[in-house]
Amino acid sequence: MGQPNKPASKPKNKPRRIKPQLVKGMRDQLGAPILRRQEMLDSIRRVFERFGFRPLETPVVEFAQTLTGSKAGETSQRIFTWNHEEDQVDLGLRFDLTVPLARYVAGNPHLRRPFKRYQSGPVFRVDKPGTGRFREFTQFDIDCVGTSSMMADAEILVAMSEVLGELGLPGHTIRWNHRGILNAALLRAGIDAERSTDVIRVLDKEDKIGVEGVRLELGSGRVDSESGAKIEGLGLPADQIDGLMAFLEISAPSDDELITAVTAHLEGVAGADDALREVNDLRSFVAALGAPTARIEFAPRLARGMDYYTGPIFEATLDDLPHFGSIMGGGRYNELVSRFSGEQLPAVGASIGVDRLLAALEEAGRPPGRDHVSDVLVTTMDKKLLPAYLELVSELRKAGLNAEVYLKPKARLGDQLKYASDWEIPFAVIMGEDEIKAGEVTVKDLEAGKAASEDVTDREQWVEERPGQFQIARSELIVRLKSLLAG
Amino acid sequence: MGQPNKPASKPKNKPRRIKPQLVKGMRDQLGAPILRRQEMLDSIRRVFERFGFRPLETPVVEFAQTLTGSKAGETSQRIFTWNHEEDQVDLGLRFDLTVPLARYVAGNPHLRRPFKRYQSGPVFRVDKPGTGRFREFTQFDIDCVGTSSMMADAEILVAMSEVLGELGLPGHTIRWNHRGILNAALLRAGIDAERSTDVIRVLDKEDKIGVEGVRLELGSGRVDSESGAKIEGLGLPADQIDGLMAFLEISAPSDDELITAVTAHLEGVAGADDALREVNDLRSFVAALGAPTARIEFAPRLARGMDYYTGPIFEATLDDLPHFGSIMGGGRYNELVSRFSGEQLPAVGASIGVDRLLAALEEAGRPPGRDHVSDVLVTTMDKKLLPAYLELVSELRKAGLNAEVYLKPKARLGDQLKYASDWEIPFAVIMGEDEIKAGEVTVKDLEAGKAASEDVTDREQWVEERPGQFQIARSELIVRLKSLLAG
Repeated sequence: MGQPNKPASKPKNKPRRIKPQLVKGMRDQLGAPILRRQEMLDSIRRVFERFGFRPLETPVVEFAQTLTGSKAGETSQRIFTWNHEEDQVDLGLRFDLTVPLARYVAGNPHLRRPFKRYQSGPVFRVDKPGTGRFREFTQFDIDCVGTSSMMADAEILVAMSEVLGELGLPGHTIRWNHRGILNAALLRAGIDAERSTDVIRVLDKEDKIGVEGVRLELGSGRVDSESGAKIEGLGLPADQIDGLMAFLEISAPSDDELITAVTAHLEGVAGADDALREVNDLRSFVAALGAPTARIEFAPRLARGMDYYTGPIFEATLDDLPHFGSIMGGGRYNELVSRFSGEQLPAVGASIGVDRLLAALEEAGRPPGRDHVSDVLVTTMDKKLLPAYLELVSELRKAGLNAEVYLKPKARLGDQLKYASDWEIPFAVIMGEDEIKAGEVTVKDLEAGKAASEDVTDREQWVEERPGQFQIARSELIVRLKSLLAG
Repeated sequence: MGQPNKPASKPKNKPRRIKPQLVKGMRDQLGAPILRRQEMLDSIRRVFERFGFRPLETPVVEFAQTLTGSKAGETSQRIFTWNHEEDQVDLGLRFDLTVPLARYVAGNPHLRRPFKRYQSGPVFRVDKPGTGRFREFTQFDIDCVGTSSMMADAEILVAMSEVLGELGLPGHTIRWNHRGILNAALLRAGIDAERSTDVIRVLDKEDKIGVEGVRLELGSGRVDSESGAKIEGLGLPADQIDGLMAFLEISAPSDDELITAVTAHLEGVAGADDALREVNDLRSFVAALGAPTARIEFAPRLARGMDYYTGPIFEATLDDLPHFGSIMGGGRYNELVSRFSGEQLPAVGASIGVDRLLAALEEAGRPPGRDHVSDVLVTTMDKKLLPAYLELVSELRKAGLNAEVYLKPKARLGDQLKYASDWEIPFAVIMGEDEIKAGEVTVKDLEAGKAASEDVTDREQWVEERPGQFQIARSELIVRLKSLLAG
């Protein structure tokens, strides 16, 4: 995988065979994972529509510059880009759904605002692929553009919490903070505004490297315990680090007391009042929306690395599956749209990592939805009877069952039943000439048969008992299958 | 649009503003078209699952060589490809869902066969964009790999017909033929096997250029009536053209008689018998599946340009909307998988052009599904009452309504109602302090209000009547809204 196709040395008149391989970091998915994802996307969509978000779709391919911004920095190396010769432009694959939204809003100035949209689709990043990390993955975003009211932030927090609740996740916590609180804490500790992006990026690592790791990385640097690599520190003076640590150590048994303590800590610091006012507004709006406040937790030490955030930030984790990390995150970004437009347009949004969330649901034993498509396989034992098999399968479909007919007429019954069991088809119908005359069919319950056959000791007994197999009148087939499928 | 970003001359300290533009041939979509497409995709998926097709997803990005094959010809110029520096490989965006399927099947030799899958997703082509033609568009495919039984072809034909029926299309026709019939007709006319791909490509143009155009293009060439361009002919001798025309002119009042006439015409020609046997099998299987045979029409002159077809081919058009051309097409391609594998693996499939079909449904006045998201807007007239508005909107959502609250608290009521009407929200709820005390709310029916206000002649009368507006007890709000929405 991931290797270029080497020219094979073949006789010249034969077309060269191409290795059937995936590009590095890409994957195929078949069956159950897609059915489940579909079900999950439907649930998410329903919640977002209940909140009045409207669907938007933007193309996968954008101008490279749209994606990277005018200062092509670290981000741009993680984007698939190329030069499209015909038009002499650099193109790229979108790496998130937020930048295309900003491009869309700026390009459609007559769009009635506030503009609330949801969007889901594949995004692409040239990251190092690893377990569960792919270079193409699905995001599901909501955003609200055009209002600075904390009502918008509250709605997004609550919508996200409802999504996680609706998916039947055993427990989740949405932690939130405000960039203005962090900025004020940095200011109080004497840290230059110019360094704030770097410092916040270090704070964002606390989940991974712990408080002590943060302290070291703010100062002289640290040695990564896993890789043994030396991580450069920011070289902040000790008093600044201590000041910041004093802020990080603030804790209290309730949100109310925590906010009081943070307020006291930041008293008189420029910008703190405005941020605290928004913090209080956001809290009261979340409460008014009737959200389960125990799940939505003010966390003044929460940082998020992206430097476009300007107000509230938030991030969700699963209580019993903390190793999945953040499965949803977002915040207010009042300046992104101005990349494309003279206008300063306030915006707030959140993004769900669909693939990661689905993996978590599966690990939690709560995968949404179905795991099979076909309910029943009509086996084809006799070439003369093919039209009869097709009539039967068509009848089953008209009755609302997902039904298929075995499409290789000469295969042995054993192979056909193996097909059913490999594709997780729960029932097979067997029908010969005699049975057709008698108006009967044989049904094989593959699950029951498998269980029952474990008790069978020899072949003779097996042939006699044919575990999981029974004969019924054809006229009863549909009713019987439906009742068996219902459980 | 479609122009490269020109560096703007700006002061150096300001970040350069990026023009918010779409790449040529790409588009954004918002609201109703996506809701409708979603509904349409759901319908299509339900039909395919009823037939036992399973979902597969493959990545958008593949190795360029996977897409182009080893002889990079005309197709490859229509593919977005680029060199990915990091891995030193040529990558590309998939241009259909069939080639990735072949790559998948060849790369997963232990997959239980026959393998039936459906797949939908975006595909990309560097075609000349035009009205309704985009460089990113959605396809919805089904395929069956691993059986040469005509049952598979019949199932695909019938599934396609059911999809078109289920979408409520006023009338459609699926025309089908067999490559072996065409090949035999060419052979009978004395045309070399080597020329057959070129000749079939010309025959495929009959819908566009007519029988006379075909005749000219097979011979000395023709002048295109629209562009005035000279189109090179294949230069076939007159007797070969006449022989082919004799085949194209075969017609008969019924499928039975047509097949008899074609059989007579091709008597003794090598390969004709095998093809005719498959034609007859396919017909009897389609009939056994109970499909509306009037809609599925044997058309011996039907050709399809793609040269990978080896057996039956088919194509659907809409009876009342012939200008949409083929909205679905497919056929048997028994050799495509061998591009990636030593194995010769029989396969048959069909593809729906989702965007074109949706455009047709809209033109036919039969768009599927909803055209709005939010059922009701809670207006926000008084800053002190924001928590009350949020409580109300939350109550409406819990009752199953799609509800939103106006998120800019200081806006005038007129602007808020304009917001509702621009976003096609049918109802607005208005609530002030007095009303809250009295346990009442005002509801504005925007549709009714718009209609009624057309009869209002002056402002005074308008203020007095407030068309489409009524006051009810808050306790009745949900029941009343639900009944209004229902009907």
